[in-house]
Amino acid sequence: MSDFAAWSRALQARMESALERAIPTHVAPERLHEAMRYVCLGGGKRIRPMLVFATAEAIDGNLTCAEAAACAVELIHVYSLTHDDLPCMDNDDLRRGKPTCHVAYDEATALLVGDALQALAFQQLARKGLHEEATAQIEMLHLLAHASGSRGMAGGQATDLSSTGHQLDLAELEFMHIHKTGALIRAATLLGGLCGKPLTATQHSALERYSHCVGLAFQVMDDCLDAEADTATLGKTAGKDAACGKATYLTLMPTAEARAYAHTLIDEACAAVSIFDDRAKHLIDIARFVVTRAY
Amino acid sequence: MSDFAAWSRALQARMESALERAIPTHVAPERLHEAMRYVCLGGGKRIRPMLVFATAEAIDGNLTCAEAAACAVELIHVYSLTHDDLPCMDNDDLRRGKPTCHVAYDEATALLVGDALQALAFQQLARKGLHEEATAQIEMLHLLAHASGSRGMAGGQATDLSSTGHQLDLAELEFMHIHKTGALIRAATLLGGLCGKPLTATQHSALERYSHCVGLAFQVMDDCLDAEADTATLGKTAGKDAACGKATYLTLMPTAEARAYAHTLIDEACAAVSIFDDRAKHLIDIARFVVTRAY
Repeated sequence: MSDFAAWSRALQARMESALERAIPTHVAPERLHEAMRYVCLGGGKRIRPMLVFATAEAIDGNLTCAEAAACAVELIHVYSLTHDDLPCMDNDDLRRGKPTCHVAYDEATALLVGDALQALAFQQLARKGLHEEATAQIEMLHLLAHASGSRGMAGGQATDLSSTGHQLDLAELEFMHIHKTGALIRAATLLGGLCGKPLTATQHSALERYSHCVGLAFQVMDDCLDAEADTATLGKTAGKDAACGKATYLTLMPTAEARAYAHTLIDEACAAVSIFDDRAKHLIDIARFVVTRAY
Repeated sequence: MSDFAAWSRALQARMESALERAIPTHVAPERLHEAMRYVCLGGGKRIRPMLVFATAEAIDGNLTCAEAAACAVELIHVYSLTHDDLPCMDNDDLRRGKPTCHVAYDEATALLVGDALQALAFQQLARKGLHEEATAQIEMLHLLAHASGSRGMAGGQATDLSSTGHQLDLAELEFMHIHKTGALIRAATLLGGLCGKPLTATQHSALERYSHCVGLAFQVMDDCLDAEADTATLGKTAGKDAACGKATYLTLMPTAEARAYAHTLIDEACAAVSIFDDRAKHLIDIARFVVTRAY
């Protein structure tokens, strides 16, 4: 097993245990907590947590702080998936190879699961004494809130909704993705960067550049996989975007060109973090994984 | 106009302006931001913001900090109303005298409005330098996150859902309300208490007692008003709880007894905050308003 495969498996196990501890169990309301565990545990690539840890490593940050930040970002990600799958949004019945939350439970529960997970994300990040510098911790909370809200992920979702069925050009498509997927990938990267001493301006720009490129490449590959892979491999309904008339990279360019574009973005991402030398190892591994993954 | 009427009107105007500034305008995604303004502005009693300010006054706290906390609590409250009104929850089409968000816009937008408002609440409270003591600010963020989540408001909603159509006893009913309505009323009161120097244990207990009693009395009166007032006065559909088979105080006791119970709770609340002397003036006014209001 490669170093990256071992590292990412260990991290997935660490996240599973951290999320398990974060969600209350055997306390009322039990059904809600059970549904929260159902959507959070036992699956997911945990790309965003990987980014938090890899960046924290790059700046010699505190990994306990990184773990809380990784939980927070993943909870936001999972809440957004749970809400996205609802009938009034994407109306999807399969996620991570399992029935979606509103299918396994009911719509009202899926709505409350998402709402409660968002609150839990901020609660994790607001744990007393998480960061030596309380002001840095507040900066982390602000960053995550901004990335999740109307100028970030939720705003990207709204743009996606209103653009379905319309032909977008590349600039419009990237504007949407920079918010919908990119905002949280950027937040994950920068949160890791806040787990230690204050970043220099150069370090901050490098992480901005890296996360911008990785976020876009991730979405390009998602579009390619949605078109090419099968439902069993993806763990979610394949071919859905095209069927719904959603704008994707593949409506703008052939698959080969899209894949080449993703590779260019990843080269740029890797170049940006070369200032961290060897400590950027896992950031580079993650970037490469994003364009080689099969699911 | 009584002093309390003048104070509460000034505070409502201050909140309107603060919420107006908190929600982005003329930036993408414009329709989402418009819908966020639609649900947040131009209405509401602003009871929770009043509690934040009144408590901040009682402890000589910083009122700029109180304003941000009041915005945060109100944003959480409004997001919960927006989600509660959705067809998969209470399926209500009237709120604060206007069509509900999913009626005026659509379900997907109402879902995203709620999601984005929750994020905005934490963003408001994570503003740099809001509190002289960054650790106190983190405590405020943690308090609000806990009160909003599965062990607070969202958990209360889940309990409410699962109890519809069942006969609850008084203890079960109060357990539900302590979470569904009480958690945010408690958070509002304690957030005001965190806007200054650290509270003594006696002050903290007094505010706990006060908010516990006010929260329950608020709900008792809500049940009475839902049964007695008309839709025009309430600005939301009257008689809905009974029609939906929801457990209310009036299924457990006659209206006169419920009103007497609310008054007993309010007397207890007022007694608890007497330790703040004259500075508890508005806390006492709010408590009295809760049992005399007609809407």
